[in-house]
Amino acid sequence: MQLSARNRLKGTITGPTLGEVMAEVTVDIGGGNEIVSAITRCSVEGLGLREGMTVHAIIKSTEVILGKE
Amino acid sequence: MQLSARNRLKGTITGPTLGEVMAEVTVDIGGGNEIVSAITRCSVEGLGLREGMTVHAIIKSTEVILGKE
Amino acid sequence: MQLSARNRLKGTITGPTLGEVMAEVTVDIGGGNEIVSAITRCSVEGLGLREGMTVHAIIKSTEVILGKE
Amino acid sequence: MQLSARNRLKGTITGPTLGEVMAEVTVDIGGGNEIVSAITRCSVEGLGLREGMTVHAIIKSTEVILGKE
Amino acid sequence: MQLSARNRLKGTITGPTLGEVMAEVTVDIGGGNEIVSAITRCSVEGLGLREGMTVHAIIKSTEVILGKE
Amino acid sequence: MQLSARNRLKGTITGPTLGEVMAEVTVDIGGGNEIVSAITRCSVEGLGLREGMTVHAIIKSTEVILGKE
Repeated sequence: MQLSARNRLKGTITGPTLGEVMAEVTVDIGGGNEIVSAITRCSVEGLGLREGMTVHAIIKSTEVILGKE
Repeated sequence: MQLSARNRLKGTITGPTLGEVMAEVTVDIGGGNEIVSAITRCSVEGLGLREGMTVHAIIKSTEVILGKE
Repeated sequence: MQLSARNRLKGTITGPTLGEVMAEVTVDIGGGNEIVSAITRCSVEGLGLREGMTVHAIIKSTEVILGKE
Repeated sequence: MQLSARNRLKGTITGPTLGEVMAEVTVDIGGGNEIVSAITRCSVEGLGLREGMTVHAIIKSTEVILGKE
Repeated sequence: MQLSARNRLKGTITGPTLGEVMAEVTVDIGGGNEIVSAITRCSVEGLGLREGMTVHAIIKSTEVILGKE
Repeated sequence: MQLSARNRLKGTITGPTLGEVMAEVTVDIGGGNEIVSAITRCSVEGLGLREGMTVHAIIKSTEVILGKE
């Protein structure tokens, strides 16, 4: 499936942390950059997300804030 | 100011496109990755964003979807 | 690709409206329900979205507000 | 109150799951479709949301991603 | 209708700006604070939003970033 | 750092509630208004957020829904 979301960053899961409802998943996208995603625990379990797995971090462009130093 | 948002990717603006209300800004974050941000035209003009400028793409972790191939 | 986003509603595009930067796409998901999506014009053009096409509206669960009558 | 949010889907709560801070609420909107909402536990308790209750899932159009098969 | 969204700020519209698809609406919430909302032009027209009208700015708690000086 | 996000409301933290993954932080912004933010527990701990601290609630304009009475 092709998505309208403009941002897709490929990486490797370095660590999922599970809460009761939500979970936090860290993805190493290379170049010293990490992406943290907060999704439901059900999604982590449903997709079988675990350390070392290759995933894509997908972000809609309307969710990206820019900061100027 | 330190932000609660967990994701910050540094890059260089490669091209802003201005509409009447919204604008699209593309940021080269290196490693062959680009981030597209849709913000208001007022923000682009207020911050003076233009090609070649260094910016940070800031994304709250609750906005990041994960995809598994 | 399998997505962590919990909500996926299949439907048919009934009308895209293009602005300079953003576009609005209406999707008939059946049962008398319509979903409106505001995405970038580039996404509409990149995916070739047009009336009559089958698409999925994908929504992260953290974006859904509940209202009680 | 009339809302600017373009999407409102009426349904019946089929199951709330409570965590310490967040909660997940599933809503059957008919036609074989379900909507999952991740809101704060305080909202679930404040509105008294429980199985069988009629609610509206409200989604801002800027939060809807489209996917093409 | 009672909403799960935790934040509601009452104010007065000081100026809507219309684009082709999106619109920007500024709301004076008192105490020297203003809220800017980017919604679809259709919403502005559908609700008949105009300068001087009383509205509520509604924000889901998962959309609020905190910054520490 | 200057942010593209149009909304910034200064206030005082009145209470953080910690879950395993997520946390809820309430900020008194004066004028009888409170803002609730749902962020990760890691952010609360990383920034050392605690009662009485001055913070800014930062909200992207695309996340603000308007309601008309």
